[in-house]
Amino acid sequence: MEYFLPKGFQFAGVSCGCKTEAGAKDVAVIVSQVPAVATGVYTQNQVVAAPVELCRSKTPTTDVRAVVVNSGNANACTGAQGTADAQRMCDLASEASGGEFTADQTLVMSTGIIGQFLPMANIEAGIRQATRGLAESEQAFLDASDGLLTTDVARKVATRRVELGQRVIHIAGMAKGAGMIGPNMATMLCCLLTDAPLGVNQAQRLLNDAAGKSFNNISVEGHTSTNDTMLLLANGQAGGAPLSEEEEVIFAGDLQSLCIELAKMIPADGEGASHLIEVSVTGAASEDEARQIAREVAGSNLVKTAVYGCDPNWGRIVSAAGYAGVPLDKRHLNLKLNGISLFEAGEPVTFDAPAASKSIRDHHTTRIELNVGNRSGQCVHWTSDLTVEYVRFNSEYTT
Amino acid sequence: MEYFLPKGFQFAGVSCGCKTEAGAKDVAVIVSQVPAVATGVYTQNQVVAAPVELCRSKTPTTDVRAVVVNSGNANACTGAQGTADAQRMCDLASEASGGEFTADQTLVMSTGIIGQFLPMANIEAGIRQATRGLAESEQAFLDASDGLLTTDVARKVATRRVELGQRVIHIAGMAKGAGMIGPNMATMLCCLLTDAPLGVNQAQRLLNDAAGKSFNNISVEGHTSTNDTMLLLANGQAGGAPLSEEEEVIFAGDLQSLCIELAKMIPADGEGASHLIEVSVTGAASEDEARQIAREVAGSNLVKTAVYGCDPNWGRIVSAAGYAGVPLDKRHLNLKLNGISLFEAGEPVTFDAPAASKSIRDHHTTRIELNVGNRSGQCVHWTSDLTVEYVRFNSEYTT
Repeated sequence: MEYFLPKGFQFAGVSCGCKTEAGAKDVAVIVSQVPAVATGVYTQNQVVAAPVELCRSKTPTTDVRAVVVNSGNANACTGAQGTADAQRMCDLASEASGGEFTADQTLVMSTGIIGQFLPMANIEAGIRQATRGLAESEQAFLDASDGLLTTDVARKVATRRVELGQRVIHIAGMAKGAGMIGPNMATMLCCLLTDAPLGVNQAQRLLNDAAGKSFNNISVEGHTSTNDTMLLLANGQAGGAPLSEEEEVIFAGDLQSLCIELAKMIPADGEGASHLIEVSVTGAASEDEARQIAREVAGSNLVKTAVYGCDPNWGRIVSAAGYAGVPLDKRHLNLKLNGISLFEAGEPVTFDAPAASKSIRDHHTTRIELNVGNRSGQCVHWTSDLTVEYVRFNSEYTT
Repeated sequence: MEYFLPKGFQFAGVSCGCKTEAGAKDVAVIVSQVPAVATGVYTQNQVVAAPVELCRSKTPTTDVRAVVVNSGNANACTGAQGTADAQRMCDLASEASGGEFTADQTLVMSTGIIGQFLPMANIEAGIRQATRGLAESEQAFLDASDGLLTTDVARKVATRRVELGQRVIHIAGMAKGAGMIGPNMATMLCCLLTDAPLGVNQAQRLLNDAAGKSFNNISVEGHTSTNDTMLLLANGQAGGAPLSEEEEVIFAGDLQSLCIELAKMIPADGEGASHLIEVSVTGAASEDEARQIAREVAGSNLVKTAVYGCDPNWGRIVSAAGYAGVPLDKRHLNLKLNGISLFEAGEPVTFDAPAASKSIRDHHTTRIELNVGNRSGQCVHWTSDLTVEYVRFNSEYTT
């Protein structure tokens, strides 16, 4: 696998004992050699972890040098101590850099157990070790990405090489997320890095648009975390003038496809998941209405258990679409599952049910295509199926 | 168990082979000896079964004589044939009565598998047999209530005796519901009968209010069915003048408590459920905001799996409250679980976790009490926990 790392970023990921698994990486540090434009998109939960409050107060900005991350502890619901600890993580990174950058130039993300104070002695040792070991290598990039993971089974990274005339720009992203929240698990974190020369408003707009097509369209169980954070750092080290309008369109397309690639990895790696479910809604009156329908279908435990059972259960899908709160004319409703037509113009279709079932069993991705009319609103939402393993995993005694 | 049956109603429940289990009752007929006021509350799903469309077109009305019900087949997504079959069920009941009442005076409810045509030969035999066997007895009442059940394990009936001065009024209710929808399962149905002399607007108002405190505050997996129907028939056979304002308040209280008693039976008997979860929210700015928070907490798979695992996992509860879309000040958030304080004024409380876990294990009902401020808005929502058995049950191949 070839990675396209942006110029002027250094990475490190180490183990400090914040996670219980021996040797599991749980601290990551990312440093830009020059001040970077930094923007964020954050959780919509009203109960917000300390690191999210700190990042929100700092972004958008033109002057970020570092991002420090820990996994294994979310620093959420931790009161004044939690606020102090989040700030202390920034202080520690600055100190460990020998003052090369300040605490104010540092962003922080945390993920893991809720309601416990950070083990600051471990975190301090981890940040020191990571900052000493910063490197531009692919291995360092992968180590840093591992430092974000919690209950994830699979590493989540993606990169892009974007040619803009003579200029070559790079985008790299790392993400984590498997269950959304809580003791024993976590949150969605994503850190995007590029050497493109972006203005701060431009970066925020690009990040918002990419999030709207990717991380805002995924779910595992729909439980919005206290810690969800998505950052974009742009350090301009690819050189050249600000992107032209035409160049921005190309860059936005690549940023979006990278974000979709990363975002899909989350439900694909959902806790206990046996299938990635892709719900595609077309023909709605607007993108918002398409999104509402797609979310409702993807959020239905009955749809999710049917996919787990390899059951082409169109009744559950059609009825979930029906209660999405969007006006729907049954007579214009069409449904395909893995390309097989199950429901046309409001009536069930005679289909080969064992073949449809086999198609679900044989593919990791189950494609649900709902056409609800002839308008232009469309949306794709990705989720995981609901399995016996999911329930086992999430009912283990953790408090 | 003593039942208080309203005067002037006859019941029957028989088996016609619509359900696959041999001998399981799957047709019910209820007849009022005189024309009754009838009102309904129906599913908010945009995809609606034929019997719901028919009932909607007839209610509210002052002239209903019969309700005919089948279980095992929802007559949903069945097009023009389904519409004809729903009408035919009313015709058959009228014919079987020897023309004592008309098809127009008959309401119809169906529940069961979606997308298959009703087995009309069986249904016809069932309606004939039931109508011949109508009786005012408790046994007939219970037989009729059994005719509504699908995947329910437990029978769901409740009655009330209401003293209004010299006058005695009765209310009887039967309900069904275990999973919300789909092939292999069903829907929520409820039929309420009273001998109170109610006007049609009064009856509709009383039914709406009772539904708002009971059946609208329960969930199993939150999947709104195509068939949900709640009917109230009032035949006035208790005699006397219309209820005074004061009498209506007393009647409304009893109707509401009966509906809550019936409604709670549904998540208590949810598919594979091991606990009934009661989420009580107080101190919100309005009842609507309290309802939104209660629904979000009750709808969280992570809260539901935690209860299944007997895990007093306050992080999942607090964070679910945080994403309900209601402004929330963490500093005014208090949480008790089975009376044990877990979270006070925005901070975790030190508590005896094994004792809290034991309390969940030892009680069928888990009480979650969330206080979110000092305003007057409150709501109680009931749901079931999410178990390995639920997933097994709903992932069995059914199409």
